[in-house]
Amino acid sequence: MRLHLGLVHYPVYDKNGQRIASAVTPVDIHDLARIARTYGAGTFQIITPLRDQQELVDRIRTHWTAGFGASYNPHRREAVERVAIADSLEDGIRKIHAREGESPFVVATDARGQQENMLSFSDVHGLLREKRVVFLLFGTAWGLDRDVLQQADAVLEPIRGIDGYNHLPVRAAAAIILDRLVGVHP
Amino acid sequence: MRLHLGLVHYPVYDKNGQRIASAVTPVDIHDLARIARTYGAGTFQIITPLRDQQELVDRIRTHWTAGFGASYNPHRREAVERVAIADSLEDGIRKIHAREGESPFVVATDARGQQENMLSFSDVHGLLREKRVVFLLFGTAWGLDRDVLQQADAVLEPIRGIDGYNHLPVRAAAAIILDRLVGVHP
Repeated sequence: MRLHLGLVHYPVYDKNGQRIASAVTPVDIHDLARIARTYGAGTFQIITPLRDQQELVDRIRTHWTAGFGASYNPHRREAVERVAIADSLEDGIRKIHAREGESPFVVATDARGQQENMLSFSDVHGLLREKRVVFLLFGTAWGLDRDVLQQADAVLEPIRGIDGYNHLPVRAAAAIILDRLVGVHP
Repeated sequence: MRLHLGLVHYPVYDKNGQRIASAVTPVDIHDLARIARTYGAGTFQIITPLRDQQELVDRIRTHWTAGFGASYNPHRREAVERVAIADSLEDGIRKIHAREGESPFVVATDARGQQENMLSFSDVHGLLREKRVVFLLFGTAWGLDRDVLQQADAVLEPIRGIDGYNHLPVRAAAAIILDRLVGVHP
């Protein structure tokens, strides 16, 4: 499998629909890193142009891969090793190209569910089975800016619960999406 | 559906296999409440005998259901409304009995995967479809004490990723398990 995850901190929406750069949330990094490890994603990129936020990610990464945390909790080390930093979506795509030898097919996730250019879970599962390089993007704050959705090659259909409620934290949404795309369902 | 969730803080194991009461983690409460709301669980019980921890849960609940948070973020209110407090597993079972008019079938979750008394995702999905009252238990810290696994009517089979790694945070495990048991898969 040639899957990579990206957690976008810019550009995303705030509560009022304004474009912002969101702050890095350490629990998101830990959770998505462990989800990436569980389901075999090669890298998990934190996408933010803000230097201080990149430094925070770097401190977390170093703590768990080389510092005290690496010996305290080796399972977490295995997960956090996958964490990488990108300045922008373009930078992230370049890094995946450098690693995989080809450009990734970029799939954005979006709880709102647009109509155009949408792929089903089964479609993306198929791409992964065909060994396509896939870059799966998650938004922070109130979701990915429209520009990111338009830059992506496709948007994944949203998770539906039992009714219209679609306000899962990104940590939970990422877990469910990876399980649906990659998990071995008994 | 007559599903209830419980997040057990006592008795659970610490890193060294000792029985402890773990501290309440606010992000777990928020995430599991939203997961419960998404997948239609009736209540989400925080199980702890510690008064100060119960008070912390109560403060979080009040903030998001009656305080500033209720108007700031109504989606979160809808989720956090499901949060309840129980002193123990027995107390939690009593509360579900009082609400549903019958005792729940208690299903513990455990990443380790024991052999005895294990049910598949499909088995538990079947119980829910038959309108059985099901109480699904998640552990904090290093997992549910053996006593809880023995008190439960059954243990759910563990989540398998692509290899043996099974160190998901409880927030992610709960999201995946609810999606597998209840989610509408396209």
